[in-house]
Amino acid sequence: MGGDNAPDMVIKGADIALVRYPELRFLLVGLEDRIAPLLGTLPKLKAVSTVVHAEDVITGDAKPSTALRGGKRSSMRMAIDAVADGRADCVVSAGNTGALMAMAKVVLRTMPGIERPAMAQFVPTSRGETVLLDLGANIECDAENLVQFALMGDAFARAVLGLVKPTIGLLNVGSEELKGSDAVREAHAKLRAGVPGLIYHGFVEGDDIAAGTVDVVVTDGFSGNIALKTAEGYAKLFFEFLRAAFKSSLLAKIGLIFVRPALMKLRDRLDPRRHNGAMLVGLNGIVVKSHGGSDGDGFANAIGVAHDLCSNGFLDRIKEELAALGAPTPAPSQAAPV
Amino acid sequence: MGGDNAPDMVIKGADIALVRYPELRFLLVGLEDRIAPLLGTLPKLKAVSTVVHAEDVITGDAKPSTALRGGKRSSMRMAIDAVADGRADCVVSAGNTGALMAMAKVVLRTMPGIERPAMAQFVPTSRGETVLLDLGANIECDAENLVQFALMGDAFARAVLGLVKPTIGLLNVGSEELKGSDAVREAHAKLRAGVPGLIYHGFVEGDDIAAGTVDVVVTDGFSGNIALKTAEGYAKLFFEFLRAAFKSSLLAKIGLIFVRPALMKLRDRLDPRRHNGAMLVGLNGIVVKSHGGSDGDGFANAIGVAHDLCSNGFLDRIKEELAALGAPTPAPSQAAPV
Repeated sequence: MGGDNAPDMVIKGADIALVRYPELRFLLVGLEDRIAPLLGTLPKLKAVSTVVHAEDVITGDAKPSTALRGGKRSSMRMAIDAVADGRADCVVSAGNTGALMAMAKVVLRTMPGIERPAMAQFVPTSRGETVLLDLGANIECDAENLVQFALMGDAFARAVLGLVKPTIGLLNVGSEELKGSDAVREAHAKLRAGVPGLIYHGFVEGDDIAAGTVDVVVTDGFSGNIALKTAEGYAKLFFEFLRAAFKSSLLAKIGLIFVRPALMKLRDRLDPRRHNGAMLVGLNGIVVKSHGGSDGDGFANAIGVAHDLCSNGFLDRIKEELAALGAPTPAPSQAAPV
Repeated sequence: MGGDNAPDMVIKGADIALVRYPELRFLLVGLEDRIAPLLGTLPKLKAVSTVVHAEDVITGDAKPSTALRGGKRSSMRMAIDAVADGRADCVVSAGNTGALMAMAKVVLRTMPGIERPAMAQFVPTSRGETVLLDLGANIECDAENLVQFALMGDAFARAVLGLVKPTIGLLNVGSEELKGSDAVREAHAKLRAGVPGLIYHGFVEGDDIAAGTVDVVVTDGFSGNIALKTAEGYAKLFFEFLRAAFKSSLLAKIGLIFVRPALMKLRDRLDPRRHNGAMLVGLNGIVVKSHGGSDGDGFANAIGVAHDLCSNGFLDRIKEELAALGAPTPAPSQAAPV
């Protein structure tokens, strides 16, 4: 029920995703009166879907704390509950990010060894795609958080991009050892000293994101959010300037007829919808956040990210990496008899 | 002497700038043996230039503290000294940013009421240009620093863009009051409460930079540096993708013949050289930093920024705004007799 054009856009996205991944089965959680008529026109999707009625909807401006307290019968909460209960393998939502994060953290809990979940997403680069995290879940981070983000980003790149040895970079304002905040320099020292399974490249700068210098760019939620949204803003501006350029002369208008197919391909390469689907990493469950302003195609991509994370054993991979790191495992609730 | 291709690029830049601003006069500070032959081929520039021999050069990897202690006979230091002595109205350098900042701060001092200088620059937007600051001079900032950056950005936009009522935005990860770090929220409250002469828009997000939502975007040096370099990285990627698109088919290659002039204009609109010239604001003197990798055209633009700041009374404007704010003025060194 979340997002600018829900549930229509969500149902359409599920229908598109089903064509791509015929093995998908859906629990559609929300207002039955709204979902059922949409499903009536999509027999293939209807055949693989169960509607789970939820009477409440978390609004886009709800505070996370309010959503947590009062939102137990909301579509968002009930969808997360389905993952916690094992009725679903993952949840995909285009709703309120803060509420989704807060509810997912309470219901699914963080993995042993992980203090705080992070939000991760792919961005287009010169070499393909790079994972960027955190994207706003954690405004202030210490060195240990950043090291944990590196581990989670590594597992994400392996699971979704299929990389065997992803390289990790730590976002900073310069490549010299002296630069950056204490947290960044301390995390750099820890990663430099060696973390099992991780290939640490070192510091990277803002322009290394688009260059694809590394496969995973680690940063705090404040800088990550600003980097992602700055990139999205400039991608939009390029196309605006490009459109203006093609309208600027008769010659350009004629040329456009020839180059239109090539430009459509370019648009596709930079299209934010292709990169839709941020994952909340570090939880005992797969939670994917779609852009609220997404359309059906974009939402289908977010479902695709969730699908890849499930089928590539993302959660087990992170657990293994954390175990290799010697992270504490949770103590059993009672001592077993000897 | 600073930058990847100095002093050639610097001398070329001065020559280009002289065509644009015939009233310019230059002190060219550096190794005389290197500068004199270059000047020999440029009689017009030679006629308005004085070469000031400096035996040392601050290298790109020199630590600011080392440059401060040992760099008294360096071209960078002697050029700043010329501003302090009143022999020059401003200094333009493509050298080591950290060293430039440290030396300028010691030699020129910060203005009364300003704790820390900041680095400010224009970025292209949908509506024209926006001032972004700080760009890396201050990694961690408190609320008071951010408010001072707002004042300095305002004066910069008035002096160089000629805006009468620039609007100010504070960069954050969301537009809600609850978002962001303590420093950001506290600065927001101060600016919201009203600062004389400033038109405060409120929080802006990363995508508001390219959208041109406000005329001045205020942030700490870490986020600002990352936003600027991320934008530069994506501008580069965009043209890389565009070139690839035009090579992708015969049709596109034919079309390129027609659209080339329009694309050249587009390139120019996004060209980082057009936006070359970051200013160190908050000092008792005008210090402009050019990109180290700039060419002559880019360096001429940096000289243009310095020219505009001088001729539009930038320093006086900032002083007036600070005075209106009720900032403390420096106590006279001795009490005047009554």
